[in-house]
Amino acid sequence: MENQSLEIQADNFFTEDERAAVYKSIFTRRDVRGQFKPDPVPDDVLARVLTAAHHAPSVGFMQPWNFLLIQSKEAKQKIHDLFVKANAEAAAMFGGEKRDIYTKLKLEGILSSPINLCITCDRTRSGPVVIGRTHDLDMDLYSSVCAAQNLWLAARAEGLGVGWVSIFNKQDLKQALKLPEHVTPIAYLCIGYVDYFFAKPELEAGGWRERLNLDELISLDYWGNDEALPAGLLEAIAQAQNS
Amino acid sequence: MENQSLEIQADNFFTEDERAAVYKSIFTRRDVRGQFKPDPVPDDVLARVLTAAHHAPSVGFMQPWNFLLIQSKEAKQKIHDLFVKANAEAAAMFGGEKRDIYTKLKLEGILSSPINLCITCDRTRSGPVVIGRTHDLDMDLYSSVCAAQNLWLAARAEGLGVGWVSIFNKQDLKQALKLPEHVTPIAYLCIGYVDYFFAKPELEAGGWRERLNLDELISLDYWGNDEALPAGLLEAIAQAQNS
Repeated sequence: MENQSLEIQADNFFTEDERAAVYKSIFTRRDVRGQFKPDPVPDDVLARVLTAAHHAPSVGFMQPWNFLLIQSKEAKQKIHDLFVKANAEAAAMFGGEKRDIYTKLKLEGILSSPINLCITCDRTRSGPVVIGRTHDLDMDLYSSVCAAQNLWLAARAEGLGVGWVSIFNKQDLKQALKLPEHVTPIAYLCIGYVDYFFAKPELEAGGWRERLNLDELISLDYWGNDEALPAGLLEAIAQAQNS
Repeated sequence: MENQSLEIQADNFFTEDERAAVYKSIFTRRDVRGQFKPDPVPDDVLARVLTAAHHAPSVGFMQPWNFLLIQSKEAKQKIHDLFVKANAEAAAMFGGEKRDIYTKLKLEGILSSPINLCITCDRTRSGPVVIGRTHDLDMDLYSSVCAAQNLWLAARAEGLGVGWVSIFNKQDLKQALKLPEHVTPIAYLCIGYVDYFFAKPELEAGGWRERLNLDELISLDYWGNDEALPAGLLEAIAQAQNS
């Protein structure tokens, strides 16, 4: 563990165009529920986005993830049934007008997308004591979330839509995927080429909920201390929102 | 919520160079603990990476995150003291040779990085019932993790190093940052320009733990079903690992 001997990156620098491409993937990524094309995803493309996921940060280099590719019609149908059941329960939790709107929302593309992918977290991988996980046992879950986000951005750059479906009873999902007790499903993703990507998140464009003002979410040194925010930073944030 | 009327993205496509830039950010991102330069991070750069975080996916468009910029020497010192205390507890959890190695590891850059950033999660934002969070209450935590990963990749493209410090007693950290009860700290990040980036994760290069073989982490339709993995996909994965 002698850092002095470790190899460093020769190509350290991003050009302006490269930097812009990274932001493009971040700002054009969408949670896709419809618009999936049935076209198969070529092996090399699937391999690249999985590799991107596998290069996510992980606590103590734990790499707690597994990747379950759900592609057979039967397997997808079983998962879709679980979604339908959970979604009916979910609808019942909303009151009045919100429930009417909720039931009309398209929230998944399980059957219409060519690939479903479940990214999991093995809570026991690499033993009981893990660097960086000693004081927060959830850090391994977060590592698997980072894998999902890496894959999502890579997929956007490949022209693939990705939608994260979270409306499942977790025990039902574990059973359907035959996950061992110590393995938790983190992200159930629908993946495929799409006819188009929406310009804005659907819940934003449809008026369900507005994008918050970033400048109202920032504080200095501790929670709520926002009066001393430097004017220069606030101006730069206003500019970044509008560009 | 009529999807038909929603605007779609005009610039749908990524060029090969743009795609390569996204992968470059993913593969060259490092968890940086040392090598921080004291140079200040310009407001426009900080604003861009915060905007990238703010454009992470969030369950029900909840946007549960806040961003606490810890920059004063006093505030950083208080956090560093918490790290030192927790890290001594952590070291004691490792046995024998592992403990000796552990105590020599550099695990944070709290004082040496110009900016510390805590990304939090407000568990109550947008009310008690949230689309997509009805069956998994942790989905909001995962949204804040996605914000951290977005910021990490944007920062890499800006030439900024980022290190995630997770060795804190969570209650101590909450108290130091004056977080209300319903707000959870998710990612405590050290941010700044760096002298260089390591070619590989330090724990990998130093021999603490190997990178797992991606092909051994994939299965079809359900856990452990890896015998039917298509040869074409396995070949593509082998190629993606080596490129």
